[in-house]
Amino acid sequence: MKIIHTIQELREWRKTAGTVAFVPTMGNLHAGHMALVREARERAQSVVVSIFVNRLQFGQGEDFDRYPRTLSHDASLIEHECPHAVVFAPDEKELYPHVIQQYKVEPPALQDELCGAFRPGHFRGVATVVSKLFNIVQPTVACFGKKDYQQLFILQQMVEELNMPIEVVPVDTGRAGDGLALSSRNSYLSETERAEAPRLYHHLTRMRDAIASGERDFARLAEETIEDLVRHGWVVDYVETRNARTLKPAVHTDHALVILLAARIGSTRLIDNIEIQC
Amino acid sequence: MKIIHTIQELREWRKTAGTVAFVPTMGNLHAGHMALVREARERAQSVVVSIFVNRLQFGQGEDFDRYPRTLSHDASLIEHECPHAVVFAPDEKELYPHVIQQYKVEPPALQDELCGAFRPGHFRGVATVVSKLFNIVQPTVACFGKKDYQQLFILQQMVEELNMPIEVVPVDTGRAGDGLALSSRNSYLSETERAEAPRLYHHLTRMRDAIASGERDFARLAEETIEDLVRHGWVVDYVETRNARTLKPAVHTDHALVILLAARIGSTRLIDNIEIQC
Repeated sequence: MKIIHTIQELREWRKTAGTVAFVPTMGNLHAGHMALVREARERAQSVVVSIFVNRLQFGQGEDFDRYPRTLSHDASLIEHECPHAVVFAPDEKELYPHVIQQYKVEPPALQDELCGAFRPGHFRGVATVVSKLFNIVQPTVACFGKKDYQQLFILQQMVEELNMPIEVVPVDTGRAGDGLALSSRNSYLSETERAEAPRLYHHLTRMRDAIASGERDFARLAEETIEDLVRHGWVVDYVETRNARTLKPAVHTDHALVILLAARIGSTRLIDNIEIQC
Repeated sequence: MKIIHTIQELREWRKTAGTVAFVPTMGNLHAGHMALVREARERAQSVVVSIFVNRLQFGQGEDFDRYPRTLSHDASLIEHECPHAVVFAPDEKELYPHVIQQYKVEPPALQDELCGAFRPGHFRGVATVVSKLFNIVQPTVACFGKKDYQQLFILQQMVEELNMPIEVVPVDTGRAGDGLALSSRNSYLSETERAEAPRLYHHLTRMRDAIASGERDFARLAEETIEDLVRHGWVVDYVETRNARTLKPAVHTDHALVILLAARIGSTRLIDNIEIQC
């Protein structure tokens, strides 16, 4: 495995890399990321995993500074899963040489809904850095986890609408044995919070089962979830049922749905979602 | 010469095209464009000239509908200059299949200055369609005329800031014998207007010569130009002296300047500029 820190060196390497499958990450890797790496491994001749904590997608007061930087541990995980992978770990000056990024990729109004309503500018920052990384890595294929469902959706639309010559591959959410979605932010949880955290997935499956059995009062199902989470100490950002193909609010006649939620326990914000065919 | 109308066919052709020099145009080609094509011819193994009147960069009440569509004439000009060129002439449904383009490339505040102050959204539309075309054509090199100086500047910055793997090549403005900058919009001019039009370049050279001789009262020079143009029936959008490297308003100590202007005669809006080393 090779670690590359500069754009210039990455571009040099790229010339002879053939087809490339790309996994953009912010590091602090876990088994969920490894599923992305395994998917990438099967999709192209070369694999690039980028590790870059992107200031542009963090809001004021968010966890940019405390976000864990664990490069050597990340590299050993990647090495184990995919010995021929290239790790692209640029520092901030490589990607933001003028500190301020002036040119942005601007997603539509969906960027201000769901997580975007609580993280102003987040998806603009994601779309912009992913565009930059795409232009540097020039991948054939890019793998993104379904855990960040809204992000995946926005990036798929961006690739299509801006005609980027890249296939976006969604990868299923990895989960702990108790159902908690794997996330770098799980490392922030205290022992008590960690024990409480699976309640999110519990409610997602409860709502899914109810909908699969014919329930269509999405608002009531969400209300029940919110009440129970609040009762157990959560601050809930949103619980919403949406059309899985459009991410518009679900209507009774939709057959492909996704329930998305975000909630905070202590100082940690967790998100999760579940798809439903009905 | 080959004319390609679909993205799919262009992508297929691209696979074996080697290095590509790209000239994006809105058609209605003239000798100014041919200088771009000649430059492109020297820069890469293959040449793509796109012809697409991009609705996204026209404002309400602008000349989108009356903009001349002259594909067969354009093709014969290109054929003459570069027989191995590919002409990429997609229709609107190819580039805007959902009619509304939701994902945009957003330039910084400079997009609302100079021409941008009079054409809201214009440079967002340019940056977005050029990004789309870049992702389709995947050029090694892209040639743009200096006549559209602010456009050239914004696209150069966009390529750098979004890390697009493309070299932007500026090409000098072509001029008629009397100095008028070659432009598709010159075809809108009546005979009287055409005789009046070189006054723009006359004032640019007058201001350049004054500055080269030590004059630094940029505002007074501009005022003189505006007064004379108004006296001759022009409506002046702006006459400004800017730093040629940053496009910020010029200061006395700058050594690389550019004077930019835009003015309307009858229903036709013309722009021009001149660079100064001093």
